Amino acid sequence: MIQATGRVWSPVVTPFNEALAPDAQRFVAQCHWLLENDVGLAVFGTNSEANSLSLEEKMQLLDALVDSGVPAARLMPGTGACALPEAVALTRHAVAKGVEGVLMLPPFYYKGVSDEGLYRYFSEVIERVGDARLRIYLYHIPPVSQVPLSLALIERLLKTYPKNVVGVKDSSGDWSNTQAMIDNYAADGFQVYAGSEHFLLQTLRAGGAGCISATANVNPGPIAALAKAWQGDDADARQAALTATRKLFERFPMIPALKAAAARYSGLEDWSRVRPPLVELNEQQRQDLFATLDEAGFDMPGLKRG
Amino acid sequence: MIQATGRVWSPVVTPFNEALAPDAQRFVAQCHWLLENDVGLAVFGTNSEANSLSLEEKMQLLDALVDSGVPAARLMPGTGACALPEAVALTRHAVAKGVEGVLMLPPFYYKGVSDEGLYRYFSEVIERVGDARLRIYLYHIPPVSQVPLSLALIERLLKTYPKNVVGVKDSSGDWSNTQAMIDNYAADGFQVYAGSEHFLLQTLRAGGAGCISATANVNPGPIAALAKAWQGDDADARQAALTATRKLFERFPMIPALKAAAARYSGLEDWSRVRPPLVELNEQQRQDLFATLDEAGFDMPGLKRG
Repeated sequence: MIQATGRVWSPVVTPFNEALAPDAQRFVAQCHWLLENDVGLAVFGTNSEANSLSLEEKMQLLDALVDSGVPAARLMPGTGACALPEAVALTRHAVAKGVEGVLMLPPFYYKGVSDEGLYRYFSEVIERVGDARLRIYLYHIPPVSQVPLSLALIERLLKTYPKNVVGVKDSSGDWSNTQAMIDNYAADGFQVYAGSEHFLLQTLRAGGAGCISATANVNPGPIAALAKAWQGDDADARQAALTATRKLFERFPMIPALKAAAARYSGLEDWSRVRPPLVELNEQQRQDLFATLDEAGFDMPGLKRG
Repeated sequence: MIQATGRVWSPVVTPFNEALAPDAQRFVAQCHWLLENDVGLAVFGTNSEANSLSLEEKMQLLDALVDSGVPAARLMPGTGACALPEAVALTRHAVAKGVEGVLMLPPFYYKGVSDEGLYRYFSEVIERVGDARLRIYLYHIPPVSQVPLSLALIERLLKTYPKNVVGVKDSSGDWSNTQAMIDNYAADGFQVYAGSEHFLLQTLRAGGAGCISATANVNPGPIAALAKAWQGDDADARQAALTATRKLFERFPMIPALKAAAARYSGLEDWSRVRPPLVELNEQQRQDLFATLDEAGFDMPGLKRG
């Protein structure tokens, strides 16, 4: 019996130059480093500050990646947007590039919306994109979006669009919800990704697909290694090590901390920059983070470019 | 002594055609009807489904209004966006049209962001637009955006940009917050608008500017009349009547109810349409709403166009 291999994706952090514009060249280089570390590219996720990027900026960055030779099968761009026409435009653009799939947020301005309204939104996107190659991974992240995707909604979408709705990223942080998604839909090929490597081994053992995790930006190799070796004898030890590393970062605001680490281990100070409304780590936080990482012997091997 | 007159603005509901595209012609006609009823046009607000509209759609609708002869001084378009470049582009476009001001949401994807991050966002917009004509009304609507604008943030913005930050719409529904904004800043000319006519008289008596209210879409004349006559003997009776009418609508999902009313009193059924993730009233809700309105003798005089 061939052992199934889990998959890991990084919601790639987006580098900004002094004018707060995306630095496409650095972004491309970062993505290639992640690919070398066996991690797929879930670009334009929450940790990418994707909703702080314009439609045009996202399209240009995706073009730059594909032009640089990134295999489209390793791309899962975020294409959700509050405005239907923008979600359709972004999704159409991504599908035309041949991406593995798109990770789609629900529209997130109105709160307390009905399953019927969300169903119509996803349904309109699918019908308007109108491309058999469209593969949507639903993005459930209630702590940020404040718009949850219920099991009933997922079930209805799966029933109507079994070829287009192929998976989910569960960033609820609620294992019972991830478990329910796996138990209910994974047998039919629906791919359930945990939103953090904290749940990676648990997800794979339960029959899920892997994880799409913020810290895959800084610790990609070891996370990808567990996804491959999850049925090995050392899987629990590997998981414990991943969780310990993740916890080093969780003590700080996550996105600024990921970028501070990228800056430090690349020697490229520009990496620290975030777009408003986010704020970079202050000097004390930076020192605390770096001391913590040093103590733990943390590194981002291969990143040196400064 | 000249009596100050309060001001009323309507967050104009956006009509969609069968293809769910904005109907510019109907939108323009609706705006002219509102102007005839003495209500200004806070187009692209929450009740306009503005965040369900693309950047391009908003620009085109604003162009259509100005081209139709709407005085720019009667326009307060919403131009906030999660992505800084989009907020800048929308704001620049609005300012170039000579609008009275723009009503600006904070970026609303990330939650729990700092005052420093929000300050930088508004500051970047102001600096990048770089136009002395820019007049921002801050949009505080925590129940929907989930990103409140604190008094400390407003104070800091006012101190740095006294010419550009000229007012606020308080849709918190918390009178003590509205009162604090008036007490702290109104004496310097800062215009505090209540987010509902429920607080209109209270706001004007306390020294505020007026209201920007959902139900100014359906009951504009009487609301504008109180704003003018708020120092008259019948002000309390007028306020009671406004509040009673508003309560008829508050029993239903607000935006679909406003549109159902527009459809009914214009005879143009297309008005009922909303964009996902919103859903129009179901048949039972429509019947309940219309029965309620009939019983109260409600009408939208002058709207008949069907």
